[in-house]
Amino acid sequence: MDIGKFVDLSEGTWRSMRSGHSLAFQHFEEVLSEIKIDKLKVDDESVQELINSVEMPMGMVTSPFRMQWEAESDWEPEDSTAVSAGSCILLPVQRSESSGWVVRSVGYAEAEQANSKYEFSSDGTLLLSTTYGQSIAEERIWFASENVRCRSSVVRTSEGSGILQTSFASEVRRIKA
Amino acid sequence: MDIGKFVDLSEGTWRSMRSGHSLAFQHFEEVLSEIKIDKLKVDDESVQELINSVEMPMGMVTSPFRMQWEAESDWEPEDSTAVSAGSCILLPVQRSESSGWVVRSVGYAEAEQANSKYEFSSDGTLLLSTTYGQSIAEERIWFASENVRCRSSVVRTSEGSGILQTSFASEVRRIKA
Repeated sequence: MDIGKFVDLSEGTWRSMRSGHSLAFQHFEEVLSEIKIDKLKVDDESVQELINSVEMPMGMVTSPFRMQWEAESDWEPEDSTAVSAGSCILLPVQRSESSGWVVRSVGYAEAEQANSKYEFSSDGTLLLSTTYGQSIAEERIWFASENVRCRSSVVRTSEGSGILQTSFASEVRRIKA
Repeated sequence: MDIGKFVDLSEGTWRSMRSGHSLAFQHFEEVLSEIKIDKLKVDDESVQELINSVEMPMGMVTSPFRMQWEAESDWEPEDSTAVSAGSCILLPVQRSESSGWVVRSVGYAEAEQANSKYEFSSDGTLLLSTTYGQSIAEERIWFASENVRCRSSVVRTSEGSGILQTSFASEVRRIKA
């Protein structure tokens, strides 16, 4: 598995069920959302803007893509407006066939630009590690089948190894009729 | 990582938060439970009984253990009696340092004796695959830290590749005061 192939497999619209676990409080969170992943060209204006902002040589970028999401929290009635929506640009940069890093225009656990290290494990799982100011997020993404993608995360404090929360998302590809 | 070391790390009492996702119905399930894992000796009576029932040469067994669990469903008030409790004996059988199979006295997705194939991926994740009559359960178990264990599962139909449900458990070691 390499990052280009992984992005190819990920392109599309996904219906996500996500569970969050707050370990200290034993609190569950449930979120239904839709995620849309589109490949972008390296010379796309939004890609170029991000490349310029991180002062990265453009030739290193492989398979940039846009991720958009729109969530309905479990606390809201189904017909309410979505409580969370957003979009970010991701720039994978290969270092070897199975590892490298990913620059994100908006981070996962905190709303700031983020650099993640990635590598693929022997079974094709994408392992992502992102260091933020106060925390480190470790994500795993794998395909259970062509149309089902799984994603887990563990968030730990950057000081020490305390684990604050975990999450798991099951993503089912939305097939257009 | 090998199965003996993995069982050593797993021994203890764990407080589990488990989320189940029914993909077709977009239904979430939440379960809090306590899991207790104890190593057993190969000459333990319950281990010998299971070995005899599967007609397995005894010398192949490595690090047998007992798993006990007691669950409170999200549908029950906290002070009600536990809705689900059980116990099973597990017999790991090493085929190579990083793979083999596990015989369980009671299965995970169905209440019958089950044989699972296992292997460790390059990052130390235990991958378990169990074929039941109607379904195949694929589990992943890994340590986020010494005291936090994560466990995901995907259940698919044995005919075709339809994925029925997924689950994710965050398990925190209960440290005795």
